[in-house]
Amino acid sequence: MQTLARQTPELETSPHLDKRNKLVIVCSKGSLDMAYPPLMLATTGAAMGMEVHLYFTFWGINMLRKKTVESLKISPVGNPAMPMPNILGMIPGMTRLATRMMRKSMDKMKMPTIQEMIKTAHDSGVHFHACSPSMQMMNLTKDDLIPEVDDIIGATTYLDLASEDAITLFI
Amino acid sequence: MQTLARQTPELETSPHLDKRNKLVIVCSKGSLDMAYPPLMLATTGAAMGMEVHLYFTFWGINMLRKKTVESLKISPVGNPAMPMPNILGMIPGMTRLATRMMRKSMDKMKMPTIQEMIKTAHDSGVHFHACSPSMQMMNLTKDDLIPEVDDIIGATTYLDLASEDAITLFI
Amino acid sequence: MQTLARQTPELETSPHLDKRNKLVIVCSKGSLDMAYPPLMLATTGAAMGMEVHLYFTFWGINMLRKKTVESLKISPVGNPAMPMPNILGMIPGMTRLATRMMRKSMDKMKMPTIQEMIKTAHDSGVHFHACSPSMQMMNLTKDDLIPEVDDIIGATTYLDLASEDAITLFI
Repeated sequence: MQTLARQTPELETSPHLDKRNKLVIVCSKGSLDMAYPPLMLATTGAAMGMEVHLYFTFWGINMLRKKTVESLKISPVGNPAMPMPNILGMIPGMTRLATRMMRKSMDKMKMPTIQEMIKTAHDSGVHFHACSPSMQMMNLTKDDLIPEVDDIIGATTYLDLASEDAITLFI
Repeated sequence: MQTLARQTPELETSPHLDKRNKLVIVCSKGSLDMAYPPLMLATTGAAMGMEVHLYFTFWGINMLRKKTVESLKISPVGNPAMPMPNILGMIPGMTRLATRMMRKSMDKMKMPTIQEMIKTAHDSGVHFHACSPSMQMMNLTKDDLIPEVDDIIGATTYLDLASEDAITLFI
Repeated sequence: MQTLARQTPELETSPHLDKRNKLVIVCSKGSLDMAYPPLMLATTGAAMGMEVHLYFTFWGINMLRKKTVESLKISPVGNPAMPMPNILGMIPGMTRLATRMMRKSMDKMKMPTIQEMIKTAHDSGVHFHACSPSMQMMNLTKDDLIPEVDDIIGATTYLDLASEDAITLFI
């Protein structure tokens, strides 16, 4: 079966010169399920030779906090795609259960954890930027963040990066 | 009143040559309300002559599953824009009620269902791609998917499509 | 500390000619936390000299309604990044409490309210577009909207704007 890290050989040997080679993603969610997509795209982009920037803002900052990066959760309520009625999701412990179920699926697929993906992404050159107003709002300093964070930047710097003909996404 | 499928005549007769003519959308949500925006944009884009690609990942896969496409729901909790307190949203049956209310509004507007929109989009040339790691995570094979799905691709192929000067969105 | 409105001097004095100078954001959420990001990016983009368009659709219409713009809420449930168990979030009044807590953080940072940000954005030239099918679905007319709204447009016009080499985001 096709795996995430798979690389199309043609892409590596004959990159089209007119293609965009930059990927700039805003990461605004702090839940386990929405932490995977930006990291998957980032590592894939880096493997394809793209310059990749992740800009963490609002709840997304939780992906960069030493205190929370290991304990990102998935909510069993408010997401009708989860096969669990809201009333069950309310029972204390259900967020933990839903999170554990997702972690198990990930394990079975031999998917790396968020922390491992951050390390891999960082090692392959992905840039990690924390949003400064979000840091202020959450009363955080650089010491609260994992070492993979490159810098703390504002919206101006983000838009400057995004304006350089990048693929832009808000997750 | 202006309707969705309305086309600006100037656009059809004198397309600007320097305009981007490609639309590549990541569909990551499995709820009824977030199923409409990508399909609306896709059919509109196709009607404008754009090359349109939808890449379904994570919960978005539910839009492509035979088993779930007809029963996408909208959650009455965790969305403060819904005029219903969380405590009411917890009552069993409220997800069904909120969903039925939205379906009624859609009906009244003569809005097609998700399945009808998928058919229309497919008939007008919109490409439907399922994300392979998501399929693995959910233990699905091509047989579980509706016939409109073109193929199962990975993040590399998605990024390759997105890099061709497309309008990119993550929904 | 770096603030949101901070402008990189080099940007103002020597804009790169090949940079994209247009920002087109779809605003689809009606919650207080997801109302800030598009407005922050919009005002920052406008301050950098960009042409900025905000297209409000689905729940995002609530940001433009006279009746709701002052009372956007944040949900304490369904967002595992919020430090509150779902069961507590169910207690009547908790949405109000979570909203008040966020408003206080914003106040402490001297962050403007959503209404103030909309005014500032409008004054600095940001364009506010309401989505016509969403207006129909919610039974609204132009009179229900705040005066900063420029016009009511459909998906064709939105895609036309987005196709002009803009930075595109779906929030």
